[in-house]
Amino acid sequence: MLITPGKLLAKIDSPEDLRKLDRTQLPQVCNELRQYIIDNVSVYGGHFGASLGVVELTVALHYVFNTPDDQLVWDVGHQAYGHKILTGRRDNFHSNRTYGGLSGFPKRKESIYDAFGVGHSSTSISSALGMAVASALQNHHDRQHIAIIGDGAMTAGLAFEGMNHAGATDSNLLIILNDNCMAIDPNVGALKEYLTDITTSHTYNKLRDEVWNMLGKMSNFGKSAQEVVSKVETMMKTAILRQSNLFESLGLRYFGPIDGNDIGHLTEVLNDLKSIPGPKILHCLTVKGKGYGPAEKDQTKWHAPGVFDKITGEIKKKIYDTPQPPKYQDVFGNTLVELAEKNLKIVGVTPAMPSGSSLNIMMKAMPERAFDVGIAEQHAVTFSAGMATRGEVVYCNIYSTFMQRSYDQVVHDVCMQELPVIFCLDRAGLVGADGPTHHGAYDIAFMRCVPNMIVCSPMNEQELRNLMYTAQLDVIQKGSQAITIRYPRGNGVMPEWQTPFEEIKIGKGRKIKNGADIAVLTLGPVGNYVVDAYSILEKEGIDVAHYDMRFVKPLDEAMLHEIFHLYERVITVEDGCLQGGFGSAVLEFMIDNGYNSRVKRLGIPDSLVEHGEPAELHHECGFDTEGILDAIRSLMHTGAAVSF
Amino acid sequence: MLITPGKLLAKIDSPEDLRKLDRTQLPQVCNELRQYIIDNVSVYGGHFGASLGVVELTVALHYVFNTPDDQLVWDVGHQAYGHKILTGRRDNFHSNRTYGGLSGFPKRKESIYDAFGVGHSSTSISSALGMAVASALQNHHDRQHIAIIGDGAMTAGLAFEGMNHAGATDSNLLIILNDNCMAIDPNVGALKEYLTDITTSHTYNKLRDEVWNMLGKMSNFGKSAQEVVSKVETMMKTAILRQSNLFESLGLRYFGPIDGNDIGHLTEVLNDLKSIPGPKILHCLTVKGKGYGPAEKDQTKWHAPGVFDKITGEIKKKIYDTPQPPKYQDVFGNTLVELAEKNLKIVGVTPAMPSGSSLNIMMKAMPERAFDVGIAEQHAVTFSAGMATRGEVVYCNIYSTFMQRSYDQVVHDVCMQELPVIFCLDRAGLVGADGPTHHGAYDIAFMRCVPNMIVCSPMNEQELRNLMYTAQLDVIQKGSQAITIRYPRGNGVMPEWQTPFEEIKIGKGRKIKNGADIAVLTLGPVGNYVVDAYSILEKEGIDVAHYDMRFVKPLDEAMLHEIFHLYERVITVEDGCLQGGFGSAVLEFMIDNGYNSRVKRLGIPDSLVEHGEPAELHHECGFDTEGILDAIRSLMHTGAAVSF
Repeated sequence: MLITPGKLLAKIDSPEDLRKLDRTQLPQVCNELRQYIIDNVSVYGGHFGASLGVVELTVALHYVFNTPDDQLVWDVGHQAYGHKILTGRRDNFHSNRTYGGLSGFPKRKESIYDAFGVGHSSTSISSALGMAVASALQNHHDRQHIAIIGDGAMTAGLAFEGMNHAGATDSNLLIILNDNCMAIDPNVGALKEYLTDITTSHTYNKLRDEVWNMLGKMSNFGKSAQEVVSKVETMMKTAILRQSNLFESLGLRYFGPIDGNDIGHLTEVLNDLKSIPGPKILHCLTVKGKGYGPAEKDQTKWHAPGVFDKITGEIKKKIYDTPQPPKYQDVFGNTLVELAEKNLKIVGVTPAMPSGSSLNIMMKAMPERAFDVGIAEQHAVTFSAGMATRGEVVYCNIYSTFMQRSYDQVVHDVCMQELPVIFCLDRAGLVGADGPTHHGAYDIAFMRCVPNMIVCSPMNEQELRNLMYTAQLDVIQKGSQAITIRYPRGNGVMPEWQTPFEEIKIGKGRKIKNGADIAVLTLGPVGNYVVDAYSILEKEGIDVAHYDMRFVKPLDEAMLHEIFHLYERVITVEDGCLQGGFGSAVLEFMIDNGYNSRVKRLGIPDSLVEHGEPAELHHECGFDTEGILDAIRSLMHTGAAVSF
Repeated sequence: MLITPGKLLAKIDSPEDLRKLDRTQLPQVCNELRQYIIDNVSVYGGHFGASLGVVELTVALHYVFNTPDDQLVWDVGHQAYGHKILTGRRDNFHSNRTYGGLSGFPKRKESIYDAFGVGHSSTSISSALGMAVASALQNHHDRQHIAIIGDGAMTAGLAFEGMNHAGATDSNLLIILNDNCMAIDPNVGALKEYLTDITTSHTYNKLRDEVWNMLGKMSNFGKSAQEVVSKVETMMKTAILRQSNLFESLGLRYFGPIDGNDIGHLTEVLNDLKSIPGPKILHCLTVKGKGYGPAEKDQTKWHAPGVFDKITGEIKKKIYDTPQPPKYQDVFGNTLVELAEKNLKIVGVTPAMPSGSSLNIMMKAMPERAFDVGIAEQHAVTFSAGMATRGEVVYCNIYSTFMQRSYDQVVHDVCMQELPVIFCLDRAGLVGADGPTHHGAYDIAFMRCVPNMIVCSPMNEQELRNLMYTAQLDVIQKGSQAITIRYPRGNGVMPEWQTPFEEIKIGKGRKIKNGADIAVLTLGPVGNYVVDAYSILEKEGIDVAHYDMRFVKPLDEAMLHEIFHLYERVITVEDGCLQGGFGSAVLEFMIDNGYNSRVKRLGIPDSLVEHGEPAELHHECGFDTEGILDAIRSLMHTGAAVSF
């Protein structure tokens, strides 16, 4: 389906075209851009509310600044659809987030207008500061560097670190605080309360009123006194807004708050700011979902609603005749509540992903025991560690890709302190449409190299429940090891998933199928691809054995001894990187123990896997059913390893 | 040499003993504690200035609070010597930082008074908040939770994340900001400037003076006007200190600044704060090195001075007759300046380790091109990435253990964006006396699994220089890969180290010694242990071949083909973890290519290696010369791998 852009938008092939327009035409450009986003996302899906909220900001920035020479850095990138459409990607925009199509995020390779690639949050201040410092060193003193960052992203430590550095420099950096009180879920924390506070200006307004009231009572002073008070008031305002504003405290000149959805005012202010040197911050108030009623009303639901009817606002969901398997996320969320009802020591932690992880189920059921700490993965882990020192049983749920952000906290604050924190690594493996910035590709390698860390992955819903159940038992909680349970985004395989809890012995795999010819060792849900291959292999006369190893660490050594005794040919399959991953752990065991099978490892190769449907990506990497079949066939046709 | 504690200190075996003393005796306790630290560190070495600065704070905290039930969390832990001495470790304190002795940092296993283990900075707020939340859930509403954090540690994002969460709760948390304007080096950044500003109160003082001056000129208003102004002033003060102080902005009640070296005032204030509910911060001004003149004067030098003459203040250095090999750090620092003089695109970045990394050499030689960004590893990497997008050639120097703190920035902001940032990973491998929190044990595993990342390690000074030289050539800078050069803490092996630069081909190892019986593959300086073994092996009739592989990634495949063709027995040696490290990379190559040698991997095992001399630790892990010899002998006496 072809989406037709509006009259003005149709002629904007680059920001230069935009800059040729008269300022009075900008409202129409905004309307057309907003409509084009609605038209596209309603048909093709994608992120929605964030881009609608910054339509005016996007148009104003490209209108006022000399992109791409001036450097625009979008934080996270959910909000950059308008930017993409204005920078030469309008007609290809329907391919957004599909295999081979445009990325859902700014990406350096995709466009010269994408000054920095994103996906994860809170990187914009640091990277734009780096650009500004480089420009100064290269004597490009007029070049502008603009970081556009949301109030949610501002809570992450990296943003603070960037401001702390920027504020002590004279760099030509403009930070635009896109304040909509939201991350994907509503923003939380003290900073958010502060922003609300300065926005509504209670402090200053209250103070001013008090002074005037007091002065009113002393009306005998006459006009001169009023003048005095007026001067005092000005000084107070200066003091409060300049010297003591949080951002001013950090050396940034603070401007605002202004209405970030007012295109006229925005272009004026941005133009003025061009001539103000040094690091500065412009506080813009915007509305997530702006201009599309349902999205303004339920901002979390409309963050990335999927395909919808743009007239009725009805989100289209597939309808099935039979019960479908649940999302792993919901299995996590519901199981945690089930466990927490019985074990009063259980608490849950998420860094700003309550709806994404389904921890919101626990937050609703037992709000005092479930914590959304905001976009703050480092803190999420160290806070969990602190609770664990006092005997709480902590389920800390972090997406695999975001766990890269709290790696030191896992090593230093949990594992070295022998604390039994339970890490639930959501979205492990190739996540699909979000692409390389969001793939959970490296966690097996970076988690299993840390002492005092158990690493496992369930093949299905029942296994996830049982691993979660086991993690809160004494076997873990009285021990000195943390445990990582990794599971993917999306649906499982068991429509009847609410099975009774059973303890899983730590480090015990399970043999799913006997077979004489070749052994396939899997970790996690990729095991289901092997199950799908059974019947095909049978027809081909290949008798495959299948082991769901469950644990990368500790490995099931008894099972591995059995396997390497019995099988000359072994295949390992994982939805994780081949460098140092599950397959490598199996190799380490094999060689350390003097075995000599021929092993083929399947997994994510040492290159960036782009976005697409998980099935497409698994196929590309060669570990879907077809890839596994190919590997089995190929290994069956080679001899054993070369031996001396 | 036995150190005798003072009269009062000799009787303090636990904080309970301290609390039995009269308040008037505390100054003497402080004197004795300070003297005991001076006496010990001057003889046995260790961290110095930080602990001297908090003697009064340490005594006051244990006097006022009910430790260990109240939870004291020391940030970083350099400053916790006094705490250790007061909490039952006085008589064992001489063993500090030695093999089998006390840890140089608080450590949960060592004492019930060490509420949280540390070593890395900025974890105290998050962990203490976790404890406070747990106490509330467990109905221990009277328990106090105190985080003692320096102004340097406060610049790290994790600390901000912790405050952002804490300030939105009603947790019973007291943050003590130990403000001495120092990390190891002088603190930097906007926050530091802010702290200086509120300490000297320029803003408020200036404002007050202006108001009074103005009012003075209008003296005809008489007394009532003065009253008005006084009231206005009070309101202004409230506004500035309460509503708009940076910490108050984050929801923390702010108290101070007070003199943190005044024991009397400290105990009073801490006592008062006990009864103030909710999260709060006490700003204490202390002097690093307090009470020992030379240490107060040169605070960086006296952070950890080594053994010294406590009377003269002379730091004792070993004197050698012959030229000694330099520290790798100085090779890095000097070589960088040498390169930067010729290549004007070169810049250097360190997160708060200018003296430790020797980047201070460049900071002195070309201050505008060398950046100390404060304790902010995440920012250091993303800032480097930003500069790299604009064509700067960035040497980002981060200790291996602290690189765990910027892992996501390496993955997401550098490698995924194909930016040729040069990471110099200082203190890779087992660092010695600092122990497990500081060992650079995991970097090979966590770096080599990331696409677009080259990982290498020099065996000596010349190799380090040549790798640094190569990294700034087009081969890297026009490419799409980042490069990690890991090297250890301490001295190299080449007294004549200033060799001419030579390009090293990326992914090329070097054969150092031919041999018929067995091949030893090494990465980095551990190769020198093998060199030391040559003559012993010769006497034993074992003809060893030695390959310095240089690169973990990309591996020298041609060389590995040669090796696995020629040698039935192969040993890999690395100063890094065995899980997923260099040896595992070699195994992956071997199996992927159908080879079948018997391989023994030497490296750091999957457990926490404690502190001690590096040589002691290498011995313990079995990869010093003796360990390598044992492995060679043992492998020579076994057959080839079991084959089918």
